[in-house]
Amino acid sequence: MVQIVRPTLLVDEEKCRAAIKSMAAKARKDSLVFRPHFKTHQSHQIGRLFREEGVERITVSSVQMAQYFALDGWKDITIAFPLNPLEWKAINQLAATITLNVCAVNAESIVSLKKMLTEKINIFIEIDSGYHRTGISPDDGSAIHKILEEIESSDYLSFVGFLAHAGHSYKERTKQGILKIHQETKDLMVRIGDIYQKTYPELILSIGDTPSCSVADDFSGVSEIRPGNFVFYDLTQTIIGSCQESDIAVAMACPVVATYPERKELIIHGGAVHFSKDNVMLNDGNISFGKAVKISTEGWNDFTSELHIKSLSQEHGIISGSSNAIKEFKTGDVIGVLPVHSCLTADLMGSYTTLKGERVSMMQKSI
Amino acid sequence: MVQIVRPTLLVDEEKCRAAIKSMAAKARKDSLVFRPHFKTHQSHQIGRLFREEGVERITVSSVQMAQYFALDGWKDITIAFPLNPLEWKAINQLAATITLNVCAVNAESIVSLKKMLTEKINIFIEIDSGYHRTGISPDDGSAIHKILEEIESSDYLSFVGFLAHAGHSYKERTKQGILKIHQETKDLMVRIGDIYQKTYPELILSIGDTPSCSVADDFSGVSEIRPGNFVFYDLTQTIIGSCQESDIAVAMACPVVATYPERKELIIHGGAVHFSKDNVMLNDGNISFGKAVKISTEGWNDFTSELHIKSLSQEHGIISGSSNAIKEFKTGDVIGVLPVHSCLTADLMGSYTTLKGERVSMMQKSI
Repeated sequence: MVQIVRPTLLVDEEKCRAAIKSMAAKARKDSLVFRPHFKTHQSHQIGRLFREEGVERITVSSVQMAQYFALDGWKDITIAFPLNPLEWKAINQLAATITLNVCAVNAESIVSLKKMLTEKINIFIEIDSGYHRTGISPDDGSAIHKILEEIESSDYLSFVGFLAHAGHSYKERTKQGILKIHQETKDLMVRIGDIYQKTYPELILSIGDTPSCSVADDFSGVSEIRPGNFVFYDLTQTIIGSCQESDIAVAMACPVVATYPERKELIIHGGAVHFSKDNVMLNDGNISFGKAVKISTEGWNDFTSELHIKSLSQEHGIISGSSNAIKEFKTGDVIGVLPVHSCLTADLMGSYTTLKGERVSMMQKSI
Repeated sequence: MVQIVRPTLLVDEEKCRAAIKSMAAKARKDSLVFRPHFKTHQSHQIGRLFREEGVERITVSSVQMAQYFALDGWKDITIAFPLNPLEWKAINQLAATITLNVCAVNAESIVSLKKMLTEKINIFIEIDSGYHRTGISPDDGSAIHKILEEIESSDYLSFVGFLAHAGHSYKERTKQGILKIHQETKDLMVRIGDIYQKTYPELILSIGDTPSCSVADDFSGVSEIRPGNFVFYDLTQTIIGSCQESDIAVAMACPVVATYPERKELIIHGGAVHFSKDNVMLNDGNISFGKAVKISTEGWNDFTSELHIKSLSQEHGIISGSSNAIKEFKTGDVIGVLPVHSCLTADLMGSYTTLKGERVSMMQKSI
């Protein structure tokens, strides 16, 4: 393993490959389009692991991220974020070279974009399936109709289908709870599909949060899934029940810089600028900003110690646990931390290191 | 003002200059060394605003940040983070060209570092003044003695003083509360100083969190202050009582991508990858991830609307407020957001844009 001297985000590519292979097989079984969300890893190299499994269509969360992945040869990209017409220049540039699918949540943004459009793009209409973040209420036929009218009156726009993100699955903590949301989302999408399929026989019904896609087996009725987080998973997904701790494919390696056995605490170099400040409530009611594990050249495979980050400041993390677990570490050691939210941790770190010590680059946001 | 099409971190340099000038004057009045913490802005260009006010010594929170600022000609840098002996190579490189001050919290790290040291460095001993994150208990004379012994037996190490960070001031919400912590910290440092001043007559007593340095006027007894956040301030500091909303020198400009007047909500492009997930409890008991304000070419100076980000996902922010305030914005507008924690927001954004539209670069962490 590489010599770690400061916080370093390790990726176990074998765990990534296993997760991708398993999700791709699930999609194939039900003849679904597998359009993974790439906002989790934001990396050309990790993206290529998907290509090895036959993936050709992807999802991203921003125009900039679409530009980044287009540079690596991805030719069919959905930006699963409400269309921002202010970005018309970049949208035209992208649409000139790839199949670009954007997401409409109202007619106004389509009206504004149409004035500036010089290239053909595809439009998904986002449906609010119960998460209540963005999207159109499934019962608001009039809002859907307005968007379709705007699309139909343009030579540059094509309606391709409905898209939903059941983000409320993240609040569930049982398989039954996740499957209930999954069923409701599917039912909703099938109902809307039935209404519009006569006019648009090819329309796509796209769903796909990681909890539902990990736990469910029945995708009948929908045509596409877009999970993202599963490529790494994280501590939150283990609490939700989407995965096992052994599935988590990224860990932060952090130097231990002080020990306070009398407080049952360790201080690591690893703070809010490395992990973000997302946290999760554990089954015992405590809040965790990450679970500490032993790491070696083999990676991380011992999940028995109950050591957690209890608080984070900009560069410091305070790890807390039992006396015995704390006493196993000393100043100068390097400890592993399974992140609470792998997407945000990866975004902050800006690169990965493989277990062999190779650097894996990511999108650079300030460019 | 620059044309904003995606989340952009604006900096009002005049507000920065005013904050720096005021803090520098406060330090001069009491003949203190003003050694500002540069972890907040992480920028050569913002750092130069301090140089204009005569600042020559700075504080940083990591070895990498010391390297970054050494490149811009800073010759006297304190790394206010527990010494990590694994970073001995970079420490030697830095110490070969600048006056490098590091922070010891135990003897072990000094013992490890000594074996690898080829250049002279200065050591501060960190005292835990009540925050209970890092540092030695002021009553643990034996731990201090051990560190001093290790320093004295090396030709490369010099003991220069005691350093404390009263981070518990961030939990206060009144001037009286902050001043009480400030007084306790000063008393503690003076007491320790009295013990060691006979042997080390030149020793430095260094304190300096933004709340205390903003609110207090009496620094008698200590020799150095190290505030950092004050250069930008943020929503948290207004809640603590360190500053007014009009003092906040950074605002995120975010496109409005959807409006839900029936929910009294707006959706902006601006999420956890832009703001971080830090939040603050407002005086009304609600949680805020940022306060929305109107912005123009002049900046942001109207703080009357009570619009706050109520939740963040990776790229989405949900702004919530009164019907009337929400109705003032439409899809395609650009709204300003005063960040909850300016240090983390700046760290995430990786660059600033001035009100004149000039780009201000920052340290790039993945390099």
